[in-house]
Amino acid sequence: MRKVTFGVANSLDNYIARKDHGVDWILWGEEAASGMTAFWQKIDTVVMGRKTYEPTLKSGRPWPSYPGVKNYVFSRRLRESPHKNVQIISEGAAEFIRKLKREKGKGILVMGGGELAKSLFEANLIDEIGLSIQPVLLGSGIPLFLPTERQVDLELLECKTFKNGCVLVTYRVKH
Amino acid sequence: MRKVTFGVANSLDNYIARKDHGVDWILWGEEAASGMTAFWQKIDTVVMGRKTYEPTLKSGRPWPSYPGVKNYVFSRRLRESPHKNVQIISEGAAEFIRKLKREKGKGILVMGGGELAKSLFEANLIDEIGLSIQPVLLGSGIPLFLPTERQVDLELLECKTFKNGCVLVTYRVKH
Repeated sequence: MRKVTFGVANSLDNYIARKDHGVDWILWGEEAASGMTAFWQKIDTVVMGRKTYEPTLKSGRPWPSYPGVKNYVFSRRLRESPHKNVQIISEGAAEFIRKLKREKGKGILVMGGGELAKSLFEANLIDEIGLSIQPVLLGSGIPLFLPTERQVDLELLECKTFKNGCVLVTYRVKH
Repeated sequence: MRKVTFGVANSLDNYIARKDHGVDWILWGEEAASGMTAFWQKIDTVVMGRKTYEPTLKSGRPWPSYPGVKNYVFSRRLRESPHKNVQIISEGAAEFIRKLKREKGKGILVMGGGELAKSLFEANLIDEIGLSIQPVLLGSGIPLFLPTERQVDLELLECKTFKNGCVLVTYRVKH
């Protein structure tokens, strides 16, 4: 079974973007970049919700394309993506991911938002969580975790700190 | 000026207690205990809000008393505390802490909840944040950080991991 990782950069007060979707507060740097390069080698599929995808769509920018990586966006509203590397999926996210996990391939990365992550946590489909905790309290914004009925127990796999103050934590979900 | 530290154990999804105030999910251990012993030597004052204090009050248990440590609870509703080591403060928390900071003494620890912390962050009175991030997503509960207008930039001072999976992060607030 392929591993599903929920990965995102978040503020210490658990926002993933400002209310206007701004991510200007996310710190980059050589350490983050080299960490991401290693991570992308273990991934061949990225999935995300419409609300994570739409800000890029609206900006008119091309979708960042990683060689050999498939991108799926879950939406019942969107029909077709103008980005040739992005496929729109209208069926339920949990169902789709359950099938993907059984197929052959590398890891699957769940990007962005609370709503998709919530449905996948509730369906017990997330295997790992990777957070890049940024040294800031944003005060408000788009939440990382939405309230849910289910408690998820975790095992800390790794914790790294970067010179710019980011803390990278990786957890295994105890299924 | 005395240093004011906001210190608490939180779930990865930023709750400090279950809805019923349960903290059964917080992991203890030798490492946490020895870390706390070192921390208590730098502290001589603990402040908290009524909502953090009341669960102990209702339980009828004596208030945990650390030698030489003064305890203040902010409340306009409570009159007198049955715990002889706890003093009720009816004036505004920010005002009171501002005065305390100017007095001679060791560090001041702000315990518990979102509401008191929010008012002190807004008044720019918190100097350090110490979180013991527990390896669990609770799903719901009493939030650590409440929404606020003010962005708070932080500098990572320390990050330690414990064998039980807790991650201890300490930040300096950039005033």
